[in-house]
Amino acid sequence: MKLATLRTGPRSTMAAVQLEAGTYLPLPAADAGALLAVPDWRAKAEEAVRTAVSTAVVRVPDTELAPVVPRPGKVICCGLNYGDHIQEMGRELPEYPTLFAKFADTLAGPADRITVAGSDSVDWEAELAVVVGATLTRADEDQAEAAIAGYTMANDVSMRDWQRRTLQWFQGKAFDASTPLGPVLATADEFDGTGVEVRGYVNGELVQRGHTRTLVFGPARLLSYISQFTTLRPGDVVLTGTPGGVGMGMVPPRFLADGDVLVTEIDGIGRLENQVRIQPVGGMREPAPAFSGTTTAEPAARS
Amino acid sequence: MKLATLRTGPRSTMAAVQLEAGTYLPLPAADAGALLAVPDWRAKAEEAVRTAVSTAVVRVPDTELAPVVPRPGKVICCGLNYGDHIQEMGRELPEYPTLFAKFADTLAGPADRITVAGSDSVDWEAELAVVVGATLTRADEDQAEAAIAGYTMANDVSMRDWQRRTLQWFQGKAFDASTPLGPVLATADEFDGTGVEVRGYVNGELVQRGHTRTLVFGPARLLSYISQFTTLRPGDVVLTGTPGGVGMGMVPPRFLADGDVLVTEIDGIGRLENQVRIQPVGGMREPAPAFSGTTTAEPAARS
Repeated sequence: MKLATLRTGPRSTMAAVQLEAGTYLPLPAADAGALLAVPDWRAKAEEAVRTAVSTAVVRVPDTELAPVVPRPGKVICCGLNYGDHIQEMGRELPEYPTLFAKFADTLAGPADRITVAGSDSVDWEAELAVVVGATLTRADEDQAEAAIAGYTMANDVSMRDWQRRTLQWFQGKAFDASTPLGPVLATADEFDGTGVEVRGYVNGELVQRGHTRTLVFGPARLLSYISQFTTLRPGDVVLTGTPGGVGMGMVPPRFLADGDVLVTEIDGIGRLENQVRIQPVGGMREPAPAFSGTTTAEPAARS
Repeated sequence: MKLATLRTGPRSTMAAVQLEAGTYLPLPAADAGALLAVPDWRAKAEEAVRTAVSTAVVRVPDTELAPVVPRPGKVICCGLNYGDHIQEMGRELPEYPTLFAKFADTLAGPADRITVAGSDSVDWEAELAVVVGATLTRADEDQAEAAIAGYTMANDVSMRDWQRRTLQWFQGKAFDASTPLGPVLATADEFDGTGVEVRGYVNGELVQRGHTRTLVFGPARLLSYISQFTTLRPGDVVLTGTPGGVGMGMVPPRFLADGDVLVTEIDGIGRLENQVRIQPVGGMREPAPAFSGTTTAEPAARS
């Protein structure tokens, strides 16, 4: 099953099952993340699909898709996780996952325009994301595997200049409305998180390509690890890292230009397509265009 | 005015004004953070105090205090921010603030027992925290200053072994229910965030002592800086760094032992007092005591 979150108004959303591309059956939950917290959500969703009347089905353009989990309690990201890329750079495989956090405000919809103000080195990071379906505390890998609701995609668009200002990456990774998430959540029964290719394109050019069989820390291991220090709950999102081919790794380094189109693709989930607008770096004290942190359903963020 | 959040049940809280130590007037808001989002909260709180009947006033022990903002949208921490300590270590003052994030689950009440499982190097970090009172996006320092609701305290209890497993500190800084926050929020009109001494004690011994006049990035500057990349909202919390005297800086390094009592103190706010329980490091696959991420009002966390 593929779950989605539809925008129903400037500040409202609704969960849905994707019946086919562009066609959805709304479900009585605020978003896909909230749906996962409902006991027996799976059986209820299947029943709804089975018994739906045709007038309940809606056709929705991608621009009306919210981030698939718009209000996660936690968004945790893993860096340095593609083993083949690490080794081709001559480095050793890490012993522990490198982890950092984002906020719900960081997320953007699968077809939203991403507007960045104040950075001159905006880079791309196509990623598989895993969504938690059950509460996990100090879980082993089997418990974590069983708790995976499903998978989606993200692009951890990164402001490298901010990221490198200090040793802690967070400030370059947490710009509002910069990380598209979606377009759908493919449930774990139909999607193998360790068996897919992750692809990233800039203006149609394939720049990133990695296979999740090469992840040093797979989805279940990541959830298990994280659950040792913090509780994971339904709707929490973990980004699993990005393959080689990011802009800062190129020689010379390459970054997104104003108007570039970023595409992220994984077969079995779909595609993110985000135009990136880059506003000139004005400095903190110069009058700057209003950069409002968008909620999940702000019309202004949509292309 | 001093605002607090009282625990009213296992999962419920209520905002209050502290009339004097241990004595509170409840206010009709879920917690102090939610109160800050109410237009005119200040006038309403003052009116409530002025007109309160004696039967509305409650006496509440510190153990019934929740983290003063139990459900902040964002908790952002600044490291490496006490200029005198940086210089005494022979380093240069930083050009940019080092920032990392915590979750709401990371917070604990002002008198809660802090239980740590899975770390063998638990350290202390007494801090001044600033609480946001108005929405800030790309704000200058004056706007940020005007948006400060008030100040509180935190102890950024850090699991140094986890913190140093990788270059990103986050996993050592985000253990559930490990960062006490409170006991009250002293509003900005009565409290000068750049004019106070921050003190930390372990088992009654003064180990940390710093003055916020030596902050490299003061509260308003920090809020302004952060608001360049993410929107800050009422109830968001920013920890402003810790002075010298942390355990890992001692020779030899010193860490908390099971049963140690950690006290954090700032005149004009009050004191945090937390007993720390350290459970043996069992490893991920060994049967471990249930380490449940506590909500703000879990009775089990209270000493």
